[in-house]
Amino acid sequence: MIASKNPGLLYEQVADKIAGQIEAGTLRPGDRVPSVRRASQQHRVSVTTAVQAYLALENRGLIEARPKSGFYVRSRPLRDVLEPGRSSPCRATRADSSSELLGRVFEAVNRPGIVPLGAACPSPELLPVQKLNRTLAVMTRSAGTKGIEYDMPPGALPLRRQVARRSPDWGVTLAPDDIVTTSGSMEALTLCLRAVTKPGDPVAIESPTYFGIVQLIESLGLKAIEIPTHPRTGMDLDALDRTLAARRIAACLAIPNFNNPLGSLMPESHQQRLVEMLARREIPLIEDDIYGELHFGPKRPRVAKSFDKQGLVLLCSSFSKTIAPGYRVGWTAPGRFLEKVRNLKFTSTLATATLPQLAIAEFVANGGYDHHLRAIRRTFAEQVQRVSEAVAESFPPGIRITRPAGGFVIWIELPRGLDSLDLHARAMAEEISIAPGPMFSPGGGFGNFIRLSCGYPWSPRIERAIGILGSLTKRLG
Amino acid sequence: MIASKNPGLLYEQVADKIAGQIEAGTLRPGDRVPSVRRASQQHRVSVTTAVQAYLALENRGLIEARPKSGFYVRSRPLRDVLEPGRSSPCRATRADSSSELLGRVFEAVNRPGIVPLGAACPSPELLPVQKLNRTLAVMTRSAGTKGIEYDMPPGALPLRRQVARRSPDWGVTLAPDDIVTTSGSMEALTLCLRAVTKPGDPVAIESPTYFGIVQLIESLGLKAIEIPTHPRTGMDLDALDRTLAARRIAACLAIPNFNNPLGSLMPESHQQRLVEMLARREIPLIEDDIYGELHFGPKRPRVAKSFDKQGLVLLCSSFSKTIAPGYRVGWTAPGRFLEKVRNLKFTSTLATATLPQLAIAEFVANGGYDHHLRAIRRTFAEQVQRVSEAVAESFPPGIRITRPAGGFVIWIELPRGLDSLDLHARAMAEEISIAPGPMFSPGGGFGNFIRLSCGYPWSPRIERAIGILGSLTKRLG
Repeated sequence: MIASKNPGLLYEQVADKIAGQIEAGTLRPGDRVPSVRRASQQHRVSVTTAVQAYLALENRGLIEARPKSGFYVRSRPLRDVLEPGRSSPCRATRADSSSELLGRVFEAVNRPGIVPLGAACPSPELLPVQKLNRTLAVMTRSAGTKGIEYDMPPGALPLRRQVARRSPDWGVTLAPDDIVTTSGSMEALTLCLRAVTKPGDPVAIESPTYFGIVQLIESLGLKAIEIPTHPRTGMDLDALDRTLAARRIAACLAIPNFNNPLGSLMPESHQQRLVEMLARREIPLIEDDIYGELHFGPKRPRVAKSFDKQGLVLLCSSFSKTIAPGYRVGWTAPGRFLEKVRNLKFTSTLATATLPQLAIAEFVANGGYDHHLRAIRRTFAEQVQRVSEAVAESFPPGIRITRPAGGFVIWIELPRGLDSLDLHARAMAEEISIAPGPMFSPGGGFGNFIRLSCGYPWSPRIERAIGILGSLTKRLG
Repeated sequence: MIASKNPGLLYEQVADKIAGQIEAGTLRPGDRVPSVRRASQQHRVSVTTAVQAYLALENRGLIEARPKSGFYVRSRPLRDVLEPGRSSPCRATRADSSSELLGRVFEAVNRPGIVPLGAACPSPELLPVQKLNRTLAVMTRSAGTKGIEYDMPPGALPLRRQVARRSPDWGVTLAPDDIVTTSGSMEALTLCLRAVTKPGDPVAIESPTYFGIVQLIESLGLKAIEIPTHPRTGMDLDALDRTLAARRIAACLAIPNFNNPLGSLMPESHQQRLVEMLARREIPLIEDDIYGELHFGPKRPRVAKSFDKQGLVLLCSSFSKTIAPGYRVGWTAPGRFLEKVRNLKFTSTLATATLPQLAIAEFVANGGYDHHLRAIRRTFAEQVQRVSEAVAESFPPGIRITRPAGGFVIWIELPRGLDSLDLHARAMAEEISIAPGPMFSPGGGFGNFIRLSCGYPWSPRIERAIGILGSLTKRLG
């Protein structure tokens, strides 16, 4: 059964109904689906909503557009592959610390010749390299001495202004003064965690979650409390509620929009419940929205911070996944913890590099960013689709694959008992990098999971690499 | 009496002898001092050594060169002003935390119209803005996609190579692989402190020391142990030895070369003793060498790390005080803690901005850096001299002023009982920023001290500001 991506949205409901017809065999591979006009009449929705529903189905890989002909049910191997279920965090014993594991996995990540399915980096081919570098060169000339001077916290006003201007799209209205710029999102998360916790504090996180967060919590001497998480709807709020009732939690850190590695999209009603549940106990929520702009659906999702009435949500994001990883420009809107975060920024890196901030502000202001986002969203959706299909074709039956609603990674559940660290080692011997599941859990769980990045354009080389991964998996399984 | 800057150096011994003659009145203001050749015969040293001695005396403000005429004893007000003595750390009660104080002092630091005697920023007029920005623009074009990609720890190889190439000048031979690049020196210090301590640990520091270090130690939950420090020779090693014998110290953090705010230069024999004293107890030394290149004497001082046999010295520096504060490029050579620091870098800011690193590496490689350093060293020495003289003229008698051996700040002891926070508030009302003493001490000591930055070119505006500060001091004293 295909769960709803976002039950709050009408077009998603329509998409689910049509998906159900495909599931049930009412509509079969190769069938032409009703025209958009017909669908709008059948489901009593506007034509716009019907179009949105079809786009959503296309992004899910269920239908495909044929030029001047309409939409057809796709015949694809992915249709027979299930999604993983809600996670069950568990603690596994392992030989090395998570940072040793990380070091081992990523030492080769930049090595030329490696097929890059490991790190969640967008391919530079897909980034606006020329335009952005040209903007940086122009800003460098025009900024003069300003470009070389310290840009003291809260950071470059032009950038904070652009972030604030975009914020209503996410359901929240930030002012430039609400924002502190940072050296990437990772610094934003670091400063926010340091602002609201002290060593030894327990912090609730999604399970699985981004390994950088796993590392960060460990390095700050915090205690990670893993909350079961659903690959479609994100953190299990009933489970979180039980945890909050049972023990003290100092903070919660979550990626409601397109959790890495799950690609989950927390429905708005869940976002609201999450914020309220934490606010009742005065627990800060650190919200990582680094993937928020990379939605496959037609609408930019809201941020949980849009439901924040008490300044308890510390929103963090960056431009690293969308345009310029190497510029190291991120930001946070830390609510009532603004002053603390600003002071911590001062003592941890003093300031963010000036010119990269100004270049990105200009790129956003002149429309280059939105133009680029429109293109890259579709590209990532397609790449996720292609990689997922290839995995479904090459890997042994019984594996499960997530259906991310945004971002550019997929999370694969391999046969029980298969050791993804072993698979990683064998893949590296074949010059293929992947991210093994235990990196995504402080407890070292997810031993039979892997994450694949779909950040690179589909190519015969990637196709071949996935074929090899499939063979290795069959041999190990 | 003028203490020796660096008793290990022959030319300093010669300079001290001549300084003694001036002190004793053997040589009087306006007198021509012996020619270099004559001095080399008198003191039985080479002509080169004699030249170095005269340059040192010039930097100390005792003699001045007159074109085609030789060196003359200067007649300057500074000669009657004493230096502060060795510090006596004390704990003062104060209303606000050090971070609140810092916020209050620095909120106006970037406000236009303020006379900038507060922050230790080099004036952008003195920095190679055009050349460096042009280099950045060129690197941006030539780096292509590389400029936009993550530059994962340990950071850009061209930069690490340049740092390694310079390191023999400081008495140590680093390899590129010994180095991790960082977002400025502040991040280097943060990562190194985090690598060798855990919250609650006691850390020995100079008293006074840079307020960023005071803040950092507080924000990491560490306990600062202030060690008395001499304004010429740096940390009092006998006092440190007694502290080490009396209690556990987890790490020592010091600025042997031109402590900020003192401008002290730890003699090589002291550096060696410091390193050995700590090594005997396996205590890591975090060495901040951010001002090391800004020596007023003829020779680049060694770093304490040059005496490190056990990998226990974590050397940190950056390019922020010499060429480009806003580029945020620093580095650390953390000895045996390399892997830990690299992993912490990964989890705190992930990577350093790529293009600023490449631009600085290129600027260093093509000789622009050394060319610039030669000019700026002399400029800062002159500015320190001018500001010091103006203070000596305008402030009430009995104040004391440091004679920094490098860097660009001076540290002034005001009449006992005068409240430098009060002076700071009154100076701000006159649009003059200064740094009050209590910022430089975790215990809030140095209530009657201020630090003045000499990073800006001498001007009537600065002269006027110092006159106002003098009047305010007289009124408060």
